[in-house]
Amino acid sequence: MALVNEHYLKLKAGYLFPEIGRRVKVFAEANPGAKIIRLGIGDVTCPLPPALVKAFHDAVDEMADEMTFKGYGPEQGYDFLINTIIEKSYNPLGVSLKTSEIFVSDGSKCDTANILDIFAMENVVAIGDPVYPVYNDTNVMIGRTGEANEQGYYKGLVYMPCTEANGFNPAFPEQEVDIIYLCFPNNPTGAVATREQLKGWVDYALKHNAVIFFDAAYEAFITDPAIPHSIYEIEGAKKCAIEFRSFSKTAGFTGVRCALTVVPEELTAHTAAGEPVQLNRLWNRRQTTKFNGVSYPVQKAAAAVYSDAGWPQVKQIIDYYLENARIIREGLAAAGMTVYGGVNAPYIWLKTPGGLSSWDFFDKLLTECNVVGTPGSGFGPSGEGFFRLSAFGNRDNVIEAVERIRKNLK
Amino acid sequence: MALVNEHYLKLKAGYLFPEIGRRVKVFAEANPGAKIIRLGIGDVTCPLPPALVKAFHDAVDEMADEMTFKGYGPEQGYDFLINTIIEKSYNPLGVSLKTSEIFVSDGSKCDTANILDIFAMENVVAIGDPVYPVYNDTNVMIGRTGEANEQGYYKGLVYMPCTEANGFNPAFPEQEVDIIYLCFPNNPTGAVATREQLKGWVDYALKHNAVIFFDAAYEAFITDPAIPHSIYEIEGAKKCAIEFRSFSKTAGFTGVRCALTVVPEELTAHTAAGEPVQLNRLWNRRQTTKFNGVSYPVQKAAAAVYSDAGWPQVKQIIDYYLENARIIREGLAAAGMTVYGGVNAPYIWLKTPGGLSSWDFFDKLLTECNVVGTPGSGFGPSGEGFFRLSAFGNRDNVIEAVERIRKNLK
Repeated sequence: MALVNEHYLKLKAGYLFPEIGRRVKVFAEANPGAKIIRLGIGDVTCPLPPALVKAFHDAVDEMADEMTFKGYGPEQGYDFLINTIIEKSYNPLGVSLKTSEIFVSDGSKCDTANILDIFAMENVVAIGDPVYPVYNDTNVMIGRTGEANEQGYYKGLVYMPCTEANGFNPAFPEQEVDIIYLCFPNNPTGAVATREQLKGWVDYALKHNAVIFFDAAYEAFITDPAIPHSIYEIEGAKKCAIEFRSFSKTAGFTGVRCALTVVPEELTAHTAAGEPVQLNRLWNRRQTTKFNGVSYPVQKAAAAVYSDAGWPQVKQIIDYYLENARIIREGLAAAGMTVYGGVNAPYIWLKTPGGLSSWDFFDKLLTECNVVGTPGSGFGPSGEGFFRLSAFGNRDNVIEAVERIRKNLK
Repeated sequence: MALVNEHYLKLKAGYLFPEIGRRVKVFAEANPGAKIIRLGIGDVTCPLPPALVKAFHDAVDEMADEMTFKGYGPEQGYDFLINTIIEKSYNPLGVSLKTSEIFVSDGSKCDTANILDIFAMENVVAIGDPVYPVYNDTNVMIGRTGEANEQGYYKGLVYMPCTEANGFNPAFPEQEVDIIYLCFPNNPTGAVATREQLKGWVDYALKHNAVIFFDAAYEAFITDPAIPHSIYEIEGAKKCAIEFRSFSKTAGFTGVRCALTVVPEELTAHTAAGEPVQLNRLWNRRQTTKFNGVSYPVQKAAAAVYSDAGWPQVKQIIDYYLENARIIREGLAAAGMTVYGGVNAPYIWLKTPGGLSSWDFFDKLLTECNVVGTPGSGFGPSGEGFFRLSAFGNRDNVIEAVERIRKNLK
């Protein structure tokens, strides 16, 4: 008799976004004239810039010609893309990487989920609270946890509260942990980590032989030159960190799908007997066995992000979203609200006024301003009393949303 | 201290294709004038047909325009593609499916690997021998097996020998199993399964509450109207089978990346306590949490496979490869060899002449004919003494390879 993986049954139903959808639907049906503005989900709205579109088209044409047609590519990604990323995106940070250390994939969601494959179940894992739900749920699915308690914490995971008091930069866990997820600029809080803060994590990991999963999906939104874009800007990080990057928010690729994971060759974890094993070798085995590479035209479009024509166009879109973030942040602050993030990051993390719960504020914002955001409690218990707004919307909508909040929120 | 998944260390090094590459390289360096023809790996060579190219371009243009830009799509795939597949590819077989029963992905390699996520470790798993190596290796990686023995069989997996004696259609396993991998038309043997044979497997699965993983990646190569294209043509299969299909070989998508997995809503497996659980629900949770959908332009190109303009163009390429298969099969048979497959399938499974080992025949074919194929022993111990040739090459090369074998093979 075939048996299911019962760990899946410990998961809460995909609660957050379906519940948002349900409440918006009920409201819209009751108020057919309301023009609802959505600043909830983290999806981009600007079209692909022309240089990327051209590269995409050219690559499709290559696929149409017997002389230039491409069948299976390397599962790890084409060298033309990997070497461009190293040269244009890592070298300027003072970070040198080998071609064999970068693995191109179809998304950071997949990579941050799949990376668990190469680690033993015995590892103690620490995640932020609030957090990108994928980190939590994939550990539940793989069987690392018990059931969730009433607050929503799963037994067996170490949660690191990210609070106003610690500036949304969590303290080191009290118990020793083996794997640490970090995401900077952070989803959902918009917090960034300074060089000193990252050095603290690298030192912790080196001391405890832990591995850091560093999710840098939003690094392109960093404008402050003092804030590191990559954890490898910190000495020793290649011995303790895997880094995830994505073209999704950087270049409007949420519907195109391309990302990358860096697994340095110096990075090892251990067998139970204490033998070091190169994680690069294991991830390479994982990817070559369970993945078949990213679509060739997509990789060509991704490489164009770093071309002379492409980068200024991409940068312009990033600046557009950052200006949205500024408008939201300053507008809400001027309206007397307490706001975090929105600088070096596309997310604004808003403290709900008057001590409202995240969901009560959701309803208030929806009914009084017809604006949709994301309740902070959906990202974890420490998100209660907070609210996430995304800067990826259209400018006119962003301005109108802020204006409505200023005028109509009681 | 972070610990690795030590199950990965049980895997043999990716032996087969690197070793082929090494021997070809040595030969080519020693014989710089030799024109080597590769009929080894299963990669396609014909370019994308015009209707698919047009749809691909049109979708890229949509991504370039703010009004038609697409961000995140449904993780399960767009309805326009799913419903086209149901209408054009399943309904003509007499198979009805719901939109929610098809999950579009970036490859059958990923899907046949990832499907294990939703099943318990306790399941007893049966695979063919010889077999597509991904089935074997992913079960090792996930921890279902012990070490391999000298023959290459991993302790804990049930191997079903596919031999000349059984026509490469394995007998039911002697011990009761919970999960059965079937691949028809088969890689590597080119064998197909009749309706009666598939009915036998469905009946077995229903009787034992087992689940069949049916890999139909090569179904487009079936020309005999009596051979089922889908396991759902067999009554009861929706209660016991997951089906995998791919655009890779059907439409030249090995470098474009699109596939699909069918998980019927009627299909359940059980908890240890005996409660039935819908596998569709678990796979949906898996895909929405660990995957982010296929590139939008790729899905539009895939949908064009079934358009009025697209299908005749796609069919022409399939027929081209099938004619290659016929040329290889009949040519080698005329040269006195024993050949299987190559009808309703793009692979020819050749019995090595004179009782040579698979690798000895590889060397002989390389040195005497300058033709590269794949040693059957690389697919499993029962592949010893056999050899796989692929029909995906260029016609002139195929004709020349067969001619050389006829003339030069001693």
